Order: sequence, then structure tokens, then C-alpha cells
Amino acid sequence: MHAGTVRHRHDTSAVNPRAAHLSLALRHVAEASGQISRAGIAARTGLNRSTASSLIDELINGGLVKETGATTRNRAGRPGTALALRDDGPAGLGVDVNVDYTAVCVVDLTGAVRYKHVVAEDQRGHTNTGIRHRIATLAHTARTAAATSGLTLSGSAVAVPGIVDRTRATVTLAPNLGWRDLDVTEVLPGDVHGLLDNEANFAALSEATLLHDRASYLYVSGQIGVGAGIVLDGRLYRGTHGWSGEIGHLTVDRDGPACPCGRRGCLERYAGQEAILRAAGVSSDPGTSLGVRPTVALIADRARTGDPATLAALTRAGEVLGATLAGCLNLLDLGHVVLGGIYRDLAPWIAPEVEREVATQFLGAPWARPTVEVAAYGPEAPAIGAARSVIHDILSDPLRWLNR
Amino acid sequence: MHAGTVRHRHDTSAVNPRAAHLSLALRHVAEASGQISRAGIAARTGLNRSTASSLIDELINGGLVKETGATTRNRAGRPGTALALRDDGPAGLGVDVNVDYTAVCVVDLTGAVRYKHVVAEDQRGHTNTGIRHRIATLAHTARTAAATSGLTLSGSAVAVPGIVDRTRATVTLAPNLGWRDLDVTEVLPGDVHGLLDNEANFAALSEATLLHDRASYLYVSGQIGVGAGIVLDGRLYRGTHGWSGEIGHLTVDRDGPACPCGRRGCLERYAGQEAILRAAGVSSDPGTSLGVRPTVALIADRARTGDPATLAALTRAGEVLGATLAGCLNLLDLGHVVLGGIYRDLAPWIAPEVEREVATQFLGAPWARPTVEVAAYGPEAPAIGAARSVIHDILSDPLRWLNR
Repeated sequence: MHAGTVRHRHDTSAVNPRAAHLSLALRHVAEASGQISRAGIAARTGLNRSTASSLIDELINGGLVKETGATTRNRAGRPGTALALRDDGPAGLGVDVNVDYTAVCVVDLTGAVRYKHVVAEDQRGHTNTGIRHRIATLAHTARTAAATSGLTLSGSAVAVPGIVDRTRATVTLAPNLGWRDLDVTEVLPGDVHGLLDNEANFAALSEATLLHDRASYLYVSGQIGVGAGIVLDGRLYRGTHGWSGEIGHLTVDRDGPACPCGRRGCLERYAGQEAILRAAGVSSDPGTSLGVRPTVALIADRARTGDPATLAALTRAGEVLGATLAGCLNLLDLGHVVLGGIYRDLAPWIAPEVEREVATQFLGAPWARPTVEVAAYGPEAPAIGAARSVIHDILSDPLRWLNR
Repeated sequence: MHAGTVRHRHDTSAVNPRAAHLSLALRHVAEASGQISRAGIAARTGLNRSTASSLIDELINGGLVKETGATTRNRAGRPGTALALRDDGPAGLGVDVNVDYTAVCVVDLTGAVRYKHVVAEDQRGHTNTGIRHRIATLAHTARTAAATSGLTLSGSAVAVPGIVDRTRATVTLAPNLGWRDLDVTEVLPGDVHGLLDNEANFAALSEATLLHDRASYLYVSGQIGVGAGIVLDGRLYRGTHGWSGEIGHLTVDRDGPACPCGRRGCLERYAGQEAILRAAGVSSDPGTSLGVRPTVALIADRARTGDPATLAALTRAGEVLGATLAGCLNLLDLGHVVLGGIYRDLAPWIAPEVEREVATQFLGAPWARPTVEVAAYGPEAPAIGAARSVIHDILSDPLRWLNR
């Protein structure tokens, strides 16, 4: 009998009680930052007051929590010193190596984006050494910017457009970059190491704190392919091997056009960037300097002028995307969809179609109509999500930072 | 901004440290039942030896754990008394109210099925009072059987073929039983109350201990509809509202036959029981006394005799089911599929097609070929899974039993 790879036998939080208690206290501060005292932490965690107080002292001494100087009152009316997350403590560095741009960003413990920089440049003509050099330069500037704000980078995370093996820090396959079984140290400078993940997964996390700390949603990112990030109770669901979210190869029509994956009629043959361009009658020559973003901007321009072929292409893409998303919502029972990547840029034409399909085809719609929202961030979304994942790791296990 | 319903802000285990520690100790005994001592529990949990020992004493006094009398040796060679789960302590009662049968079963703390009984009878002609009477009789017999084995029923769980609202203990919609917004107390006797869930969800749990304690897999159950239970790291993934697993309405072909759900070309139009019967040229008259199981047995008989229409129908159903499952594996990145319900009965013809489709269409197959397995249990699967869910609840929070 065989079952999928098992990632962890027990939650880390359960194995080390001290880490679990510190995390619990820190997450309660995070949820009610500036509005909670030591007594409030004790009440919400169920820990006794002296334990809660000593945990808070440890978090204060470690530079994660501060006393704001303000006073809170508990239900009995007793005053207490308000606690808040520090915004001058640890920070996460996020890096996104994409086909036609590189992005970096810095996020502080409160989840706020403190620095970001996107450089548009096609990576495909560059050697791995050239890519590493560019990342090193960008990371150095980000690190300097963080230090200027009093922040200390506690770790980094790297988004790539492909399938990754997180445990081996290897990019298994990133077809558009020509990477296969690539050890990431070949493209990452020595001071940028950390968790790897697929760009759609990290992009999904960029929405996490904007929604609710424990929200569940499907983030769909339109690119040349169509990827998704599944967030359950505020955490990225990565799957057995870390390959979750391959929504682009759900079947729209078994007798549809052939897909490079070997199947027919996959979603990306209808709603991927190339499919939209083709249906709109716009040529997409990767040899031109047009690049991905300008091409999408061109589509948006044509749609605004009312070009019939473009409008029909977008309507059709939105319909098929919406129907497929409705199927995903039926399978996963998620109540919220976020449209990212090119769907964010093309939202005025895509989003209404998606909303309509989802509202009519989600089986639970009579009881709970799903909501569809446009992503808050554009090309910087994966880098922001990557940086936030570093912060999530500190919130889950503050000892990572305290024992550094 | 709106996000899906949030089910719980923090894990119960994190809120009450004592419950979390008891659960941790109990789960370690469960994993290494008969092979672990108090010192082993301390080593694996990271708790100090006196804490671990007092937790074990509490579990022993509460009737959950016993000393077997055998001796274990730790790495340093020191002898210790072996600990095991009691098989004469608490037990879970599982009830499955289905369209054409009612099933009950009793599972002990070790997950073993100690009693089961399936009564084939069509519920559709019966009033809710009649259904309640039948369940009361079955539950009484199960309770007596449990007591005879020295077991005490600690709770019950009820599987129904429909969408449920667990928090309100209401069946939102069970079309084949004609139930809509039904308060389950209308069909459950007073001594059978507990968690409600969809039958495919509970059926999925029936496989959980057969696989690995932390396995992730997709359980697909063929019936008149097609349902699925998603198990992640050994736990049922229920979704935002508890409606997850509606695989039957994933699109096979947007231009395919109309489905009662309002879409076209849904999976169940190709691989549901009625679709297979129709394609095989077998009439399915719900007015006859043939019932669901005999109908499936008839199909299996015809296939065994090599009836071409039946074989073609099964091949087509298996292909379409396999392709849809491959899409789900791509979305969820699961490495294992279990075929239940009618697919278990029809496995000799369905399973090879599913295996082939999944092997060729799961994008990660070159690195990790998914496995396909036939369910261990037939019609009793939902009742067994329901009973196991009661045991899972005790393992997650032993205070439910200790404080009873």
C-alpha cells in the first residue's frame, strides 16, 4: 500500500511547547496589535497570567513586540499597557525571478511592504551567472533600504515560474526559463537563500493579510499559462509535493485544441495569454521587444476602443475561466476568488464574466454566493507574497528569530 | 471586502495547553501502540519526563491507555513499561442514512470495526418518523453489542447523501431523500446525536487508518451522483461551508449533455451510475425493486460475460473519470486516489482506465506517479468513517472523553 509523501508527522508547534506558546502569544498580539495587553493575551490564550507575561517579556526583549505607551482596559475595567508588533524588527526579503522581469521587496513584521523594485527585462537571453548578478544587485539595494528603515532581514524567499522541490532547493521545471532540475544556488547569490515556491503560490499569499488572517480563497494568476494558489485558513496549501494549483490543465473540452501537456482542451488553451491574443487577432512574437506587459496593455487598449474581436476574445476567456473556477469552488468549497496576473489588467472585461459563471454554477450559490475580487498587486505580487512567507514563518515559530 | 466563512480562529489544541498535551501524548501512544513507554513519549513529544508521565497517568486513569505488561527498551537500553490504546474503552457509533440502505457500525479507540450492520431498504417510501424508528432500532442493537464487548459509546456521527450544515445540525439538501433544510432531530432518535457529514466525506475517512495516519488522498465515490472526500494529512478537508468534494460537477465537455445542476457535460453525466446504465443499454427504473446494488451487480455480470455495450460503457466511464481525477490531482497535488461506491464494484473495468489516464495526465507523473486503489469497504464505508470521526475527535481532544 502506498500513500503520498508525508510532509510532517506533527506540527512543529505541537512538538515544542515553548515555541507553540510564543507563537500563540505573538499571533494574538498580531491580531489585536495596539489593542491588547498582557492580561488580554492571558485571557485569549488560556495561559495563566504569569506565563503569558513572561512570554510577552521574551517577545519584547527579542525585538518582536513593543509596549506602545497607550493603555487598554479589560472587561473588568483594569488598565493594561498596550502591546503591538514592532515595525523596526525583523523583515522578510522576497525575490521573484520571472520570464520578463525580476522583482524584490521587503515586508516588515506587521505585513507592510516597506520597499519594492521591479526591473522589466527578459531573462531568456541571459546566462545563469548573469541572472545571479542581477539578483545580487537588487537584493543588495533592498537590504540597504531595509537597514535604513531600522529593519533586519531575517530570511528570504524566492518565487519562480515553475515546479519546485522545496526540500532540495531545486527548480524541477521552469519551461519558460529553460530550467530543469536547477539547483537554485546557481542563480541565487550567497546571501539570498530561503524558501522556494511557485510564483502563483506566493502571489496568493500577497492577498492573505489584506483579507482575513484565516481566510480561504483561490487566487488565479493568468500568464502564458494559468496558475493558482490555494489558501486555506490563511495558509498556502501546497499539496503532497508542492505542485498544487495547476488549474491551467483542467479540461474545458476533451475534444478541444491540443495542449503541450499532452491533453486536449485545457483551460490555458482558452484563457491563457497566448490564447486570448490569438482569439483577438493580435500577433504575439516572442522575438519582438513588446514583452508580456505591453502586450496585455495593448489588448486592454483595444478593448477600451470597443474592438469587436478583442471584446469577443475576452468574453469567451472570462466565461471559460469562470466555468472552470466554478468547478474548482465546487470541488474545494471555497467562497472567494481573487483574479491576478493578466486577469487583473483585463478585469473590466474578464471579472464580470467570471462573476456570472461562478454565481450560476457554484452549487452552493443559493446559500452562499461566492465573491470575486481583483488582486491588489500586479507584477510585484509574487515578491510580496514571498517576503510575507518569511514573516509567516516567524509568527509560526518566533524562536527562528529569537534564537538567531 | 468579503472572505469565506471562517471556521475557527485558532486550533482548539493551541487554546487549551492541557488538552493539546494530552492529545499529543495519546496520539504518540496510538502511533506506536504497544511499542512505546513513558520515556519514549517524553522523547517524542519534547515534554519533560515528569510531565509526560503525569499525562500518561491521566490517560490510564481515564480508560484511554493501558500498560500492556510487556517491556520496551529505549536507545540507552533502559527498560520501560509498554503502553497501548485500550480496546475496551470509548467507541464511536457511525450511522449512514442512505437512499436504499441504512447502516450502523461501532469502532473502538484503535480504529478497529467491532460491529456493523447494513439493512437494505429503500427510504423513499418512508416518513421521517419511520426512518427515525429504524435508526433507533439499529442504534439500540449496536449499543448493546458495544456494551457486550465492554465498550462505551462516546459519541455518534451520521452520514447523509447530501449537503449538510454541521453547525446547525441540518441537512441543507439531500435531493434523493427529498430532504431540504431538515433538522436532523426529525430523523434521529434522542440518543443518536453528533456530527453530521456528507457520505463521501465519511467514506473517505474509512480509509484513513488503512493508509497512513497522515496520508493525503482523494476518495471518489460513484453513486447516482459522483462525490469525493478530500483527505489532507489524515484529516478530512471539508471546505468553507462543509460542501467540498463536488467532483461530479466538474466539466468534461462544455457542450455535453445537460445536467440537473444547470451546467452541461458534468462528470456525472458520463461516469455516474445512471449514465453507465444508459450507455450499457440497461434500463434503470427506480420503481422496480431492483435497487442500486443489484443494478450494479447486473452491470458487473454483463461485463464478465463480455457484453460489448457494457464493456464500452465502462471503458468510457473510466476514461472520463480518470481524466477528471487527473485534473483534480493537478489542482490539489495529491498522489493517491481511492475508488469507492460503484467504482469499487466495477473496479476490474474502471480502475485500469483510471490508472492509465492519471498516469498520462498528472503533470507531476514523471517525478511521482500517482497510485490508484480500490476502496477497502463497500456500502458500510460511510458508517465506518462516521464512527472513526468520533474516535478522531477523542484523539484530538481527550478531554471530551475524560471530562464526560
